[in-house]
Amino acid sequence: MIERVKVAVVGVGNNTSALVQGLALYRQSGSLVGIRRPMIDGLGVGDIGVVAAFATSAEKIGRDLTEAIFLAPNNFPRLDCDLPRAGVPVTKGLVDATGVPRVAAALAGAEVLLYSAPSGRPETARAYAEAAHHAGVAFINTTSDPVARDPHLLGRFEAAGLPLLGDDLASQFGTSVLHNTLLRLLQERGLTLVSSYQVNLGGTEDFRNLVDNPNTKKQSKLNALSEGHPAADQPAADRPAAGTVEVAPLGYLPHLRSQKVAHLNIEAQGWGETAVSLDVKLTVHDPSGAAGVNIDLVRIAASALRDGRGGYSAEVTSLLKSPPGTAV
Amino acid sequence: MIERVKVAVVGVGNNTSALVQGLALYRQSGSLVGIRRPMIDGLGVGDIGVVAAFATSAEKIGRDLTEAIFLAPNNFPRLDCDLPRAGVPVTKGLVDATGVPRVAAALAGAEVLLYSAPSGRPETARAYAEAAHHAGVAFINTTSDPVARDPHLLGRFEAAGLPLLGDDLASQFGTSVLHNTLLRLLQERGLTLVSSYQVNLGGTEDFRNLVDNPNTKKQSKLNALSEGHPAADQPAADRPAAGTVEVAPLGYLPHLRSQKVAHLNIEAQGWGETAVSLDVKLTVHDPSGAAGVNIDLVRIAASALRDGRGGYSAEVTSLLKSPPGTAV
Amino acid sequence: MIERVKVAVVGVGNNTSALVQGLALYRQSGSLVGIRRPMIDGLGVGDIGVVAAFATSAEKIGRDLTEAIFLAPNNFPRLDCDLPRAGVPVTKGLVDATGVPRVAAALAGAEVLLYSAPSGRPETARAYAEAAHHAGVAFINTTSDPVARDPHLLGRFEAAGLPLLGDDLASQFGTSVLHNTLLRLLQERGLTLVSSYQVNLGGTEDFRNLVDNPNTKKQSKLNALSEGHPAADQPAADRPAAGTVEVAPLGYLPHLRSQKVAHLNIEAQGWGETAVSLDVKLTVHDPSGAAGVNIDLVRIAASALRDGRGGYSAEVTSLLKSPPGTAV
Amino acid sequence: MIERVKVAVVGVGNNTSALVQGLALYRQSGSLVGIRRPMIDGLGVGDIGVVAAFATSAEKIGRDLTEAIFLAPNNFPRLDCDLPRAGVPVTKGLVDATGVPRVAAALAGAEVLLYSAPSGRPETARAYAEAAHHAGVAFINTTSDPVARDPHLLGRFEAAGLPLLGDDLASQFGTSVLHNTLLRLLQERGLTLVSSYQVNLGGTEDFRNLVDNPNTKKQSKLNALSEGHPAADQPAADRPAAGTVEVAPLGYLPHLRSQKVAHLNIEAQGWGETAVSLDVKLTVHDPSGAAGVNIDLVRIAASALRDGRGGYSAEVTSLLKSPPGTAV
Repeated sequence: MIERVKVAVVGVGNNTSALVQGLALYRQSGSLVGIRRPMIDGLGVGDIGVVAAFATSAEKIGRDLTEAIFLAPNNFPRLDCDLPRAGVPVTKGLVDATGVPRVAAALAGAEVLLYSAPSGRPETARAYAEAAHHAGVAFINTTSDPVARDPHLLGRFEAAGLPLLGDDLASQFGTSVLHNTLLRLLQERGLTLVSSYQVNLGGTEDFRNLVDNPNTKKQSKLNALSEGHPAADQPAADRPAAGTVEVAPLGYLPHLRSQKVAHLNIEAQGWGETAVSLDVKLTVHDPSGAAGVNIDLVRIAASALRDGRGGYSAEVTSLLKSPPGTAV
Repeated sequence: MIERVKVAVVGVGNNTSALVQGLALYRQSGSLVGIRRPMIDGLGVGDIGVVAAFATSAEKIGRDLTEAIFLAPNNFPRLDCDLPRAGVPVTKGLVDATGVPRVAAALAGAEVLLYSAPSGRPETARAYAEAAHHAGVAFINTTSDPVARDPHLLGRFEAAGLPLLGDDLASQFGTSVLHNTLLRLLQERGLTLVSSYQVNLGGTEDFRNLVDNPNTKKQSKLNALSEGHPAADQPAADRPAAGTVEVAPLGYLPHLRSQKVAHLNIEAQGWGETAVSLDVKLTVHDPSGAAGVNIDLVRIAASALRDGRGGYSAEVTSLLKSPPGTAV
Repeated sequence: MIERVKVAVVGVGNNTSALVQGLALYRQSGSLVGIRRPMIDGLGVGDIGVVAAFATSAEKIGRDLTEAIFLAPNNFPRLDCDLPRAGVPVTKGLVDATGVPRVAAALAGAEVLLYSAPSGRPETARAYAEAAHHAGVAFINTTSDPVARDPHLLGRFEAAGLPLLGDDLASQFGTSVLHNTLLRLLQERGLTLVSSYQVNLGGTEDFRNLVDNPNTKKQSKLNALSEGHPAADQPAADRPAAGTVEVAPLGYLPHLRSQKVAHLNIEAQGWGETAVSLDVKLTVHDPSGAAGVNIDLVRIAASALRDGRGGYSAEVTSLLKSPPGTAV
Repeated sequence: MIERVKVAVVGVGNNTSALVQGLALYRQSGSLVGIRRPMIDGLGVGDIGVVAAFATSAEKIGRDLTEAIFLAPNNFPRLDCDLPRAGVPVTKGLVDATGVPRVAAALAGAEVLLYSAPSGRPETARAYAEAAHHAGVAFINTTSDPVARDPHLLGRFEAAGLPLLGDDLASQFGTSVLHNTLLRLLQERGLTLVSSYQVNLGGTEDFRNLVDNPNTKKQSKLNALSEGHPAADQPAADRPAAGTVEVAPLGYLPHLRSQKVAHLNIEAQGWGETAVSLDVKLTVHDPSGAAGVNIDLVRIAASALRDGRGGYSAEVTSLLKSPPGTAV
């Protein structure tokens, strides 16, 4: 029988809530609903267990992980399953590099460190990566901060036989992949794009933060629509023209909680220059989209670690927005 | 300079209106808007010319083609271009096989016969195919009546070095391809389909006829969503489950004229069995979708004829719903 | 303290399920969510109790009402509340007038008979009305069959001091009232209607029946949009033109269960003849819409009975599609 | 025969373009499409003529009004009508009070001054009002700057027999009136509001300005939804609860030009606390919505002037967001 993968997580936000609750739900039900890959290298979803968790919020530190995931500002829903106490108290996380030895010690026994904190703190991300390296643990960076894109750091993980996967998680199902797919379909069918927009509304802390600093995300969205993943493997000529696609400001609407709502419109022309029009509304839980990819990253990292394959693994490129080699 | 392809059309309905007007528009403007393939074997859109037209409506017979396309019940809009008289009077079409010699004589000088009459009259379709064979003209069947799927007839065209392309035109952009693409995207991302529906509304004679005989079309839609084109090249395991996708009755709404409006809904589940929901409204002119594919079929047929390649051409399979070898 | 109103129901379908479960939910929670009128003549929602139920389905007869409401083809969801056994076994209902004495006897102790069977059986509806008259019980007809519109019958109820309320329940919130409100708003603001459509999709037996016999319902919808309730109190000049509003065929989509989904579109013109466009999707549980009105009809009937006011009560006109005086 | 009303306009933006073009269109066609009130006090739409126009843009000054309305950043479409030269050159507008005598002189012969410049310059608005007062001309303030709400100024217009109408134009058909109507309908039917949002997208300079200063507009929207016009005449208890309605940030999407697109969502509960859901997309030309109200304000002002009724007229309250007596 396969040994359960021991995962430590940094960040006890909505994404961790979705991961921890989903693990419980699938273990109890045996369901495969919503799971992209039931088995990866012999590891099922139920073969993953969280053994440590780090956070900086005073309210969360010391609480059992299964309680801490429901504390504000988290607002991912309580899934319909039993959630037995994890026996994993939330540990005080890193603030700067001075805490690295302490965190490395706390990682004893873990195989994978999943870095799932908010983006925008590159020094913290790298300090955790150092701790993982020190403790001989694989590291996954789901934030847009450059970690796997740092060739020096990647080289050190590779040399140590430790997997380093990142950066910037691509959601299992989100606005970009949907918008991209529709624009590409129109193009394949020979329609000419006239204009297109997307509006994204949500109620999480992530949305609140992005509303305060909108430009980065908007540019990132436009990149994703024009030349980013998952289209980056297509020749440039086949990609939709970026100039005609507009991304409206994000809307932070607290009542949506962890749901994201996106409105998309595409106006195009077909034969005879006649109008073709598409209006789409998408509703999805963002944290589920993250957890549904994290469960794959964790299994790929664990499998690589057990096999002694250090560094980056090309297998995860489609799961990331900014893999090694893309712009920092 | 390439010689213009001489096309005869059977049926002076909306689809022929879209084709004839589109040819004029593109020739005048040089625009490539809405054109899927600017050049096919050296033939541009402007290299196609209609030299004969057959219809059965007393009002249309004898009128110049450029007038007949605007007569009721046609309701495709007048495009924004000049439409000089074609000098092509609409000829009385076939009713039964006795007219074959007359039609064959009228095809003298034509290279391609585009059969674009309503579906549901297989004897008429085959009589026109006989006339084309007799006259040494390539034949394209855009209806669902079996013509290219008749192995004996196909063999005779092949032997004579005459192209025979069909059956059943797949629209350049319609509900099926959109619905299929979205269902497939969900599946690729690992979401589990809960339920889905589509409703199609339109104002053409085609819609009126289909409303009177809904079952055929509904089944055909379900086929298209489960295993038909353009997904037939995918392994069965990758196709969406047909049982959960429902197609509501077509609605004939005269005020929509040649526009089709489709409402699609998809309910799915992602990680943690959380809900993912998609609502789509598509607005498109069905006759444009037909003309945008006919323009490719005509050029492929002409090129094959000029090259002496008779019979079916695998190149057109993606443009058809029922190519040779599929069920009659 | 007020005495609880004793209600007998005919028909143990989705509407009765919604009523019975809703009564339990509100009694337990004290909630007023979704209740239009918390108190009517001193009667709260919790002051209503079901004491008898009639049905014709062999599976339902003899079962406790709280079990029978969940039997197929019923598909209204199980609400989130405890549902203690009612102690009310479902009684064999009337087939023809010979059963009237038996039903009248079974009504002993009841104050109101709520006729909530499917529409289309006028003889049955009147036989139950006779039984109610015989037993000295108020009668409510929620079907489109003419009962309260029968002046002779109404006169007899009036003479006996027994309330008779009907016919044809107007839903608490449905497509007609929404479409009507939007058309009226456009008109008030001086916009000119170009065209409009509605499509209704649902998964109940009602929908299945209406799909088999679509014309009646479609005409009734158009009536409602042009001159029916709730707009009948407006001068004809203020009503939207019926000719430009189209109702697409109903779609029976079993997976929707008791949900109704309606898609509405309105195209209009404002100043300078510029386009104004509205697209609406409505999702609602039809049986809730019925129960939310039945709870008011029952209280009004009970109050009138207790006060000795027989016959029709003008107070309920806004709750009905075909009150006395409208066409049979 | 009635004498044509002589109107001077301040601001040569989209709203003035819609007004000027609409006047030409209706005069030529005799159409009443999209006109709320064909006649006001004997004045038809065609009885209005623009005799002077003021602007501050160097490009517009000196150009004929019928040319100036198409200069950037104006992006209201060219309507489908002839637009003969007006013979009205755009005059240099006011910057501060020193220009009042010059403008007053330029108003000689005018009856109404329609102030249709961007909001946010209260001193300029009042300087134009002074010029109108000086010249004996009625004044209409369509901006949110307080003019008619200034009791002293209003008193002086009243004493002089000059109409003063304002402030802040309510669109003929916009998001607020639609959202309000839907929320009120739900309430009337006894549904309980759970949550609601609106998102507004547009491509005009107004939108660009509002995106730069979003809070004012958002608050104003919330006011309109909770207690502002057009609902201010309803008792407070009948108004929707403001707390549950959220207005997302405006999105400036240049490709929309003068179209506004609004997405509305309403989640509510009916009987049994079951879900009711409404999704709406509205597309409308904002400048048409302004011109469709301005045409009424101008006729009411002219009629009052001709009758010697100075000051405010209660008749216009429903056309304004901030009439006299509301908060400045």
